[in-house]
Amino acid sequence: MFDEMWGAIEHLGRDGRTGGYLRDAWSAADLELREWFRQEAARRGLDLHQDRNGNLWAWRGDPSRRPGVVTGSHLDSVRQGGAFDGPLGIVSAFAALDLLDRRGFAPARPLGIACFTDEEGARFGVPCVGSRLLTGALDPDRARGLTDDEGSSLAEVLRRAGRDPGALGRDDETLGHVAAFVELHVEQGRGLVHTGSPVGVASTIWPHGRWRFGFRGRADHAGTTRLADRDDPMLPFARTALHAREAARRGGVVATFGKLRVWPGNANAVPGLVTAWLDARGGSEDAVRALVAELAEFSGAEVTEESWTPAVDFDAVLRDRLAAVIGAALARPAAGAEVAGAGVAGAGTAGAETAGGADGERAGAAGPVPVLPTGAGHDAGILAAAGVPGAMVFVRNPTGISHSPEEHAEASDCHLGVLALAATLEELCRS
Amino acid sequence: MFDEMWGAIEHLGRDGRTGGYLRDAWSAADLELREWFRQEAARRGLDLHQDRNGNLWAWRGDPSRRPGVVTGSHLDSVRQGGAFDGPLGIVSAFAALDLLDRRGFAPARPLGIACFTDEEGARFGVPCVGSRLLTGALDPDRARGLTDDEGSSLAEVLRRAGRDPGALGRDDETLGHVAAFVELHVEQGRGLVHTGSPVGVASTIWPHGRWRFGFRGRADHAGTTRLADRDDPMLPFARTALHAREAARRGGVVATFGKLRVWPGNANAVPGLVTAWLDARGGSEDAVRALVAELAEFSGAEVTEESWTPAVDFDAVLRDRLAAVIGAALARPAAGAEVAGAGVAGAGTAGAETAGGADGERAGAAGPVPVLPTGAGHDAGILAAAGVPGAMVFVRNPTGISHSPEEHAEASDCHLGVLALAATLEELCRS
Repeated sequence: MFDEMWGAIEHLGRDGRTGGYLRDAWSAADLELREWFRQEAARRGLDLHQDRNGNLWAWRGDPSRRPGVVTGSHLDSVRQGGAFDGPLGIVSAFAALDLLDRRGFAPARPLGIACFTDEEGARFGVPCVGSRLLTGALDPDRARGLTDDEGSSLAEVLRRAGRDPGALGRDDETLGHVAAFVELHVEQGRGLVHTGSPVGVASTIWPHGRWRFGFRGRADHAGTTRLADRDDPMLPFARTALHAREAARRGGVVATFGKLRVWPGNANAVPGLVTAWLDARGGSEDAVRALVAELAEFSGAEVTEESWTPAVDFDAVLRDRLAAVIGAALARPAAGAEVAGAGVAGAGTAGAETAGGADGERAGAAGPVPVLPTGAGHDAGILAAAGVPGAMVFVRNPTGISHSPEEHAEASDCHLGVLALAATLEELCRS
Repeated sequence: MFDEMWGAIEHLGRDGRTGGYLRDAWSAADLELREWFRQEAARRGLDLHQDRNGNLWAWRGDPSRRPGVVTGSHLDSVRQGGAFDGPLGIVSAFAALDLLDRRGFAPARPLGIACFTDEEGARFGVPCVGSRLLTGALDPDRARGLTDDEGSSLAEVLRRAGRDPGALGRDDETLGHVAAFVELHVEQGRGLVHTGSPVGVASTIWPHGRWRFGFRGRADHAGTTRLADRDDPMLPFARTALHAREAARRGGVVATFGKLRVWPGNANAVPGLVTAWLDARGGSEDAVRALVAELAEFSGAEVTEESWTPAVDFDAVLRDRLAAVIGAALARPAAGAEVAGAGVAGAGTAGAETAGGADGERAGAAGPVPVLPTGAGHDAGILAAAGVPGAMVFVRNPTGISHSPEEHAEASDCHLGVLALAATLEELCRS
């Protein structure tokens, strides 16, 4: 089931030249992926609901009667991103539900699968737009006014996709359906590689944000303007980029300028404006804030905060319990084969749990899986910050590379991830 | 006539928000401007010829019987460029022809007006594509394979415009029609401002070129990748940009990074590739070459030469003669009014030359106008390098700013430019 679902979407939005994914929110590829989500929900008889902010929810049971346990992630990508960041959490969610069905598990609560809209912010610059709007962390007027590279506002793009941009905003009814949220995600570092574990649980998400630095100069001819007469904004940008690395090292945080616009962008003209986006994160909010303040002063640029996410500490009791439950689940013989070897949902799966035998995918002793922090932002963090109890399950990434076509997870680790997610949902839905 | 023509095109391709022009080669705006050129040729009864490389030639007389004198420039712009760079030379060409007609001047040779294609290279990265192909300075296979930001090759773009890309290449027949070429152009520095003259003549064009610097790194997650584990190409680019300024100052040349591509360009990802275009120019070829070699070594980047134009020295005898002829023409009373006050071509213009009286546009004593070098490349330089005798007439630019919406020339100076161009054509067509 996992492998079939993966195969059905892995070509969508893929750049044939680079192998990287181009799944901007509300792009044709994103709309195809959303349609695929609807179909997977329909074939399982789940009730599909699209909320005011464009997030998709597939429910078994009625969460308006009793709040349910939700798992899921997102389907959009950064530009030239990898296959796993987002989709692994959605595919694993459906696969985990199938596994619970085959086991005959009867959840005590409604069970939902969520697909959050525009998690990466590749198109409009602000990440986690869907979950931020849902929880009220993003002002709907500001969201509607965000523009993409073509100058189209989010409001226009939503209208073109047949959505009502006037509906955007905090949605307490939808949020009230969620008793707990669990997101499975490919790890975006090498923490699990170092500990030798295929799966882990998140402890915290570092505080992080994005700031737009506008360096203004004067556009002019590149051949006829004397050096002394120039006001070339590329130079203060370059100094700031170098200073950012040094200040980040000193402050024990990370800082990146990964997106840049040079206006007007002629090879034969001194630019008039360089706009650079700073991504900064770290273990301490104060350290991140101090870095941004230092760079704002050093650069002389106009600095605008585009997003800020405070530190998120996932519930310590819950995460330790899940680490133990998952550790026990993975230690069962032939754990991975239960996922890999099974057919599609509902199709004669009685024998699946016993198929496979002891096959080398056994994860080790029955101790808890590692609990580790991450520097990456997630919808689970936005929901946790809004008071929704939550957790994250990470799947090992051999190189630690992410936001790149080289992002990877082994199939056998992905299968163990499904098992871990199923164990988590079982645990959360016991009562 | 000048003012009417100017008014007919000044809105084409103009960005309403910035006032800058977007007249990429073969864009809708460029095609409209080319159509306007055809109409101006047609209303004067000129024979229009489009050569194999897409350059337009409007002839009075048959240059296949005897080579003629040609003036003209280009109609495309850099992105967010000014109104004058290019179009001033074309509009002035038609206006000068009208002026000579009103004076009843009978040229001893065919007289042509040329519109060169893709002078700026804003779209495909190589400047003076039309004149370089014409003279054989650009290989047609390389030209066909040049791509724009959307990934469309020049061959595809030409095909979409109804042109045959297979026809591109050196065109000795067309070139053989040109006995001499004169290009009028807005000055792109403040040389004429400093000398207090509305018009001048070019002495030399600095050697200049464009080099593409490819800085390779490894795309990665901006939050989860430790600083020590990063291979971020933005840092060597930044160091190179700062070093370029310092090395250029030391070498007495100019160097500019005005165009940059950051791949994949996500705010939350360490880039995998930064591509930066260096524009370098100076009074000495050795000095420019030395700068590029120093930066190639310093940067560690993959460096590709995209274009190179050796120094061009316009014929010293011709330029001094033209400086004197123009000086005399501008010193006549009411010189500018002869251009500004006249109606459209052919429409009862007998009285125009005497209209206006002594009106303050008199340019001064009858000495020669200034002869000055330029750091800007031009089609006239490409033709001169190919052995076509040539000259350039510059019109004063109050701020010296060019390749920017702020590029400017006063109307009265433009009118004197037409007068200067007419005097030049008269001089060249005497025999």
